[in-house]
Amino acid sequence: QQPMTAEKKTSKEQLMHSIAPEVKKIEQVMRQDLQVATVNADPLLREILQYGLFNGGKRLRPLLVVLSAQLCNCRVNPKKDKKSAVYELAVAFEYLHSASLYHDDVIDHADMRRGKPSVNNKFGMIAAILGGDFLHSRSMYLVGALGGVEALDIFCKATNAMVNGEFVQLRNTQDISLSETDYFAAVKGKTALFIAATCELGALVSNATASEQQALAEYGMNLGTAFQIIDDLLDYQGNPVDTGKTVGNDFQEGKMTLPLIYALSIAKPEDKKRLLLLIEKKSVTEHEFIEAYGLIEQYNGFERSRKKAESVVENALSGLQVFSDEKCRPILNLFKLLTQYVLSRKK
Amino acid sequence: QQPMTAEKKTSKEQLMHSIAPEVKKIEQVMRQDLQVATVNADPLLREILQYGLFNGGKRLRPLLVVLSAQLCNCRVNPKKDKKSAVYELAVAFEYLHSASLYHDDVIDHADMRRGKPSVNNKFGMIAAILGGDFLHSRSMYLVGALGGVEALDIFCKATNAMVNGEFVQLRNTQDISLSETDYFAAVKGKTALFIAATCELGALVSNATASEQQALAEYGMNLGTAFQIIDDLLDYQGNPVDTGKTVGNDFQEGKMTLPLIYALSIAKPEDKKRLLLLIEKKSVTEHEFIEAYGLIEQYNGFERSRKKAESVVENALSGLQVFSDEKCRPILNLFKLLTQYVLSRKK
Repeated sequence: QQPMTAEKKTSKEQLMHSIAPEVKKIEQVMRQDLQVATVNADPLLREILQYGLFNGGKRLRPLLVVLSAQLCNCRVNPKKDKKSAVYELAVAFEYLHSASLYHDDVIDHADMRRGKPSVNNKFGMIAAILGGDFLHSRSMYLVGALGGVEALDIFCKATNAMVNGEFVQLRNTQDISLSETDYFAAVKGKTALFIAATCELGALVSNATASEQQALAEYGMNLGTAFQIIDDLLDYQGNPVDTGKTVGNDFQEGKMTLPLIYALSIAKPEDKKRLLLLIEKKSVTEHEFIEAYGLIEQYNGFERSRKKAESVVENALSGLQVFSDEKCRPILNLFKLLTQYVLSRKK
Repeated sequence: QQPMTAEKKTSKEQLMHSIAPEVKKIEQVMRQDLQVATVNADPLLREILQYGLFNGGKRLRPLLVVLSAQLCNCRVNPKKDKKSAVYELAVAFEYLHSASLYHDDVIDHADMRRGKPSVNNKFGMIAAILGGDFLHSRSMYLVGALGGVEALDIFCKATNAMVNGEFVQLRNTQDISLSETDYFAAVKGKTALFIAATCELGALVSNATASEQQALAEYGMNLGTAFQIIDDLLDYQGNPVDTGKTVGNDFQEGKMTLPLIYALSIAKPEDKKRLLLLIEKKSVTEHEFIEAYGLIEQYNGFERSRKKAESVVENALSGLQVFSDEKCRPILNLFKLLTQYVLSRKK
């Protein structure tokens, strides 16, 4: 597997090099907007926003807004004056993403986020809830102001699907009858719809045709789905040094993710019984987790999940064939690199 | 004071009789909108929304939207077809108000709300945070869809001022140097701006002139301020059976509200010293609270606060003189009854 890894590293470097100026611009516009939005705000609120928003996030969501807009504009004029509005719209997505992380950290009692104390841990629960509310509100305002009612509609449907996805996930926990279909329905609400909205709104505020907008929304939906599958794989297979998370959290909490669902679907009765017993335990020992891991591996749960993520990503890319113009190729290549990054990411 | 009370009771009955059909309509439109907004939602999320939204709320905020719109339309045609949009916009305000209560109950660890278990208590913290997020998002969508970008701007400024107001309040707690001006600045953000927004947006979606819209915004700001002063008085003087809250919470938590600020501003050095010592204690006994209450009363803190609320309410009403048309009189009378209700409310 060594040559694979080397190649991936190169494509990651290539991606990072290409997107660095965009990320810089996104962060610059975010700083400017925060200045405006908090002009009369309490110093503590400002500090909380600053801390939570500039903590090494990947900026995947705002980047997708910007790149989607560029892809739709590539034939026309890549340097159109709508640019600044696109970056502000992109910032709205980072705000909403951060707002959901602020609240998630309260909900999950998470002490750490990206290797640093979470907002909840550092500033307390009140600060985390209210800081999230502030960002939520600002994000909605930006989307409405920059994209109009149609954009606000798409954005709200995605954010409400995220909330609903959390409830579905609560309901699915330890539901041993959960199917692959149920899993993908939950992933759609929890992660994929919001990533689809980044691409769709990037298209909406550009010169996209209806079919281009639709193609980008589908790309986002597939990319988001693959992103979540890999997330769930990393929960079993990630290196805690990279991910900043303990291995096996999901299993410990009884979350029915794809590797487990696949393994259960073909396991021999005695192995299935054993896995179910372990998933229903309130707390498993390290030894028991290793046993469960072994059973999932034995029934190809991890390999099948990775293959699924790869095929979902292929679907994502093939949908973008609508952007066939020669001028689109460089940006299209970035979309390709992004999907590779999502598949190969270690954190 | 008996005759006063009797007269107030009559005006309250008169008010309740006049607004009953509006409240009914608001709740009907809210049920319809919830149906649409949660068509594919998890049953638990639906239950949480139903429970928190229909728990005997006064509907003051949506009512102000509807009445403000009626006041602006009264000369033109009171039965215009914009009506339904006005009720939906009104519902958005009740959603946002409820969202803030869901989150407040988590923040304050409040077990009870209007005499029933709070959402946080009954369904748990996760449900209360996420349920609030859902309503927050839906409210923004409705405001943007029905009132456009200008409405969304006013609404977001008010919601973000609410969040900021909570931080200011945290900062003000046990700040014994707090002045009357500081108090009113905090009240503006925490309560009054949002109530001003109800009136302003009711005007915005109607046939209001700029000066009518401005007059209603100012009415709301004054009404909201009086509302908060009375709220702070009830914390000292309310009957727990009516309010559903323990007496003396604010003092216990070191909140510097108006009665205390007034008393401190004129107290003799030894009394001031004693009050400050009590407010800075982590926990006061019932005996100590009675002592503090006595000192505040001795320096007319309560009476002055009530007088202040009365004068603020007078300002509220005098601003509405711009609606001088004869046809406006019945609705104008409701605004008058509303201010009387705010002054005389017991819960």
